[in-house]
Amino acid sequence: MTAIRHALTVTREADFAAWYQEVISEAEMAEESGVRGCMVIKPWGYGIWERIQKLMDARIKAAGVDNCYFPLFIPLSYFAKEAEHVDGFAKEMAVVTHHRLIQDGKGGLVPDPEAKLEEPLIVRPTSETVIGQAMSRWIQSWRDLPLLTNQWANVVRWEMRTRMFLRTSEFLWQEGHTAHADKADAMAETLRALEMYRAHAEDDLAMPVIAGEKPENERFPGAVATYSIEAMMQDGKALQAGTSHYLGTGFAEAAGIRYQDRDGQQTLCHTTSWGVSTRLIGGVIMTHGDDDGLRVPPAIAPHQIVILPMLREDEGDAALLAYCEALRSELSAQSALGEPVRVLLDKRAGKATQKRWAWVKKGVPLILEIGGRDAAGGQVSVVRRDRLWNEGGKVNFLAQNRDEFVAKGAAELEDIQRALHFEATSRRDAQIHRGITDVAGLESFFAESKRYPGWVELGWSRPTGAALEQVVATLKALKLTVRNTPMHAPAPGGTCVFTGQQAVETIYVARSY
Amino acid sequence: MTAIRHALTVTREADFAAWYQEVISEAEMAEESGVRGCMVIKPWGYGIWERIQKLMDARIKAAGVDNCYFPLFIPLSYFAKEAEHVDGFAKEMAVVTHHRLIQDGKGGLVPDPEAKLEEPLIVRPTSETVIGQAMSRWIQSWRDLPLLTNQWANVVRWEMRTRMFLRTSEFLWQEGHTAHADKADAMAETLRALEMYRAHAEDDLAMPVIAGEKPENERFPGAVATYSIEAMMQDGKALQAGTSHYLGTGFAEAAGIRYQDRDGQQTLCHTTSWGVSTRLIGGVIMTHGDDDGLRVPPAIAPHQIVILPMLREDEGDAALLAYCEALRSELSAQSALGEPVRVLLDKRAGKATQKRWAWVKKGVPLILEIGGRDAAGGQVSVVRRDRLWNEGGKVNFLAQNRDEFVAKGAAELEDIQRALHFEATSRRDAQIHRGITDVAGLESFFAESKRYPGWVELGWSRPTGAALEQVVATLKALKLTVRNTPMHAPAPGGTCVFTGQQAVETIYVARSY
Repeated sequence: MTAIRHALTVTREADFAAWYQEVISEAEMAEESGVRGCMVIKPWGYGIWERIQKLMDARIKAAGVDNCYFPLFIPLSYFAKEAEHVDGFAKEMAVVTHHRLIQDGKGGLVPDPEAKLEEPLIVRPTSETVIGQAMSRWIQSWRDLPLLTNQWANVVRWEMRTRMFLRTSEFLWQEGHTAHADKADAMAETLRALEMYRAHAEDDLAMPVIAGEKPENERFPGAVATYSIEAMMQDGKALQAGTSHYLGTGFAEAAGIRYQDRDGQQTLCHTTSWGVSTRLIGGVIMTHGDDDGLRVPPAIAPHQIVILPMLREDEGDAALLAYCEALRSELSAQSALGEPVRVLLDKRAGKATQKRWAWVKKGVPLILEIGGRDAAGGQVSVVRRDRLWNEGGKVNFLAQNRDEFVAKGAAELEDIQRALHFEATSRRDAQIHRGITDVAGLESFFAESKRYPGWVELGWSRPTGAALEQVVATLKALKLTVRNTPMHAPAPGGTCVFTGQQAVETIYVARSY
Repeated sequence: MTAIRHALTVTREADFAAWYQEVISEAEMAEESGVRGCMVIKPWGYGIWERIQKLMDARIKAAGVDNCYFPLFIPLSYFAKEAEHVDGFAKEMAVVTHHRLIQDGKGGLVPDPEAKLEEPLIVRPTSETVIGQAMSRWIQSWRDLPLLTNQWANVVRWEMRTRMFLRTSEFLWQEGHTAHADKADAMAETLRALEMYRAHAEDDLAMPVIAGEKPENERFPGAVATYSIEAMMQDGKALQAGTSHYLGTGFAEAAGIRYQDRDGQQTLCHTTSWGVSTRLIGGVIMTHGDDDGLRVPPAIAPHQIVILPMLREDEGDAALLAYCEALRSELSAQSALGEPVRVLLDKRAGKATQKRWAWVKKGVPLILEIGGRDAAGGQVSVVRRDRLWNEGGKVNFLAQNRDEFVAKGAAELEDIQRALHFEATSRRDAQIHRGITDVAGLESFFAESKRYPGWVELGWSRPTGAALEQVVATLKALKLTVRNTPMHAPAPGGTCVFTGQQAVETIYVARSY
């Protein structure tokens, strides 16, 4: 058996952070832009984002939510209205103070002192405040409720330490904002959005997640309750992959979002907000990537099948290309995961093996190499990206009858989608540890366990206030955080690991991104 | 014959600018945001933009252009590199100078002096400079060319006088940026994009346009040649609805975009850029709107058919809704203009006539009102938005057999698309005036002619430099500009209206937005 020579220079086991950067670079997904904290999203990374957008947008529209667009800039005064929210966000934001540049007389440009804004504008870090102003205009009566809006937008949060897709100063996201007549309806919407995110992560991204409520200390600034989906990366760390917030009446009060109820009373609305971002792409990389690069779940792959003709720059190429084009056309007429199959015939010049490895690193689910002999014999040579190597340590190309492959190609894509989800779920479940009964046990588990320890499931007493702060401090010393309390989990038996009181709910404790 | 009582309070004839604002407001397309120069795009306006994006994006991808995403912020130093470009743009841009706010001690917030950026960041007014930097990294050899990129993004140009959709400080657009080995290839791309815009305007927006070259004084800052599509609004003014620029090697030199050619020589690339924006929506309003509101061409209508059941809140409603739902389902299974028909069954509470007029003002191409009697008799009552009134001055509802309507509904939508284009083209062509031979004639035409005079077609000698400046000044005194020189027009006979020299090309002269 040959030792496998992987496509990347760094393995996940050797250096997970370096591996992550290499996947992004070798799969040509994104790169540093030269602008502090901002990345350039390259065609393969952006193509995955377009797929995520398309699938998520369909889910959002199916729930009756209307897309809108609100201003990039938020006047400082809007921001100052919601005190808790400001405390949470005021620290690191991009502030626009001038609206003109002038020549400095030395060949350079400077902000024109004459063009200083009377009121600075904030580049939106999130849009609760500015959308709240619009809602206060749009809502008069109970007939206007619920008001369900969403926008796809860029937002900016000045970050000191950035990592591509996971934490960048500018990122792309969708933010849903809704207003309701009462708490029950707003909570139902908060949990609907959470379930939508869970389904998107599991079904579209093949990324298993735990949907649950964040502890009090991890709430969105100004929220009454915050829910998240949490995914386990291959290094055992947790990634918060989406959040949904019940905001109570605090934002409504700050923005004046009131309605006349059926009895003619002016009543405050209950609002929600929920979002997922380009961070999901980081989650896909760290869930499905391997030592040969990315593996993209077929549902979000810009190309699901790439056909590579082994061109020889001779008179045989025309027949080979015609064979490949017919194959592309027939495969494109198939439907997988509810959509036409996305097939690329890669006719570019270049060495066939170089092209193959470029697509392997990009993670295309199915790669077909077609040589003149395959064409003559009615064959195709196929490798599944999720089963790249055979037991002999060679690339697992299987020669198949062309018509048979065409007949089952779509089903194969659906099988890859399932297989990636199954693999990730099995790994995640195997890395959730139970049975720890005290803080010393927690400490020794994370100290002693292997490099990528995973998550610990505990029962706790849901402490609040100072008692919670104590727990947070204890965990912080171990570089741990409470991720969330899973929805619909039965009450755990026993006592709280931290307080010794009766345990009332289950939590996950982990290192995190 | 009854006098028609139109749905809007202002007619196009009475006050075109006020009419435009009323259409936007009554069709619930957009509104002022409270943030200077920025609008809120509401669901109906944003739904039209999503349709425009979808159709344009398909055209862009079909041309082999890859979508990417580049940073919102551009460091001041990037901007200072391309001198002409800076002169054109440096004046009015949003400048980020701080990255943090702090409490001012009086309950307010101020930019933190400790968090002043060493180098100010500009909110992109357009992305040539930052994309040029990326291209300089991505392009090494002739094999990397052409490099074809596009992004969908928001941009900011500080505007003193704004008008919704037409001129706002923040707007949404796509910007294509490409790099090529030589001038011929870059010019071909510039003209391909122009033709793409022409086809999109005519075929998708049903908006006739003249595609042509802008005069030297109207070029994009730093461009060697600028092309546009120009549409005539119903008030006879011109709207520049899209532009495509051949940038020569100037931007490539500033950003260092060089490639090794087949002979091993380092060679500067020739670049292009091209864009259309939410301004197109303003063009659609002023091309197709009438005194009852907007009329949306079916290709870009979020809903092409709206079914309004005449609910009576009694036991008959269930059967009526079932009838309408079956109709919706059968119509949705049809295909018009190459896509499934988009049908909304509007079941909301509210008076039927109020709902009807709301959809009339939004401009839905086909409105169906269905009462209990229609349902019982297998009928539908249909009005085409482009033929809203009958000769008797009543709303032109026609009772039709249900199955016959289902069979021809898609064809009807395609007919509306053609009819709107024909109507707009006929009006435009009737408003292009010829035969003016001197400046005095031009002056008297615009002084004497009716309120909405349209465009004048002239031959000119294509003056440059000081001679052109003279022409521009002459026209400016008449509030006129040269719109463009149409592509493929035969050389005009006679002499130049301005210089008296031989006329070498045709131009359009008009008032404009």
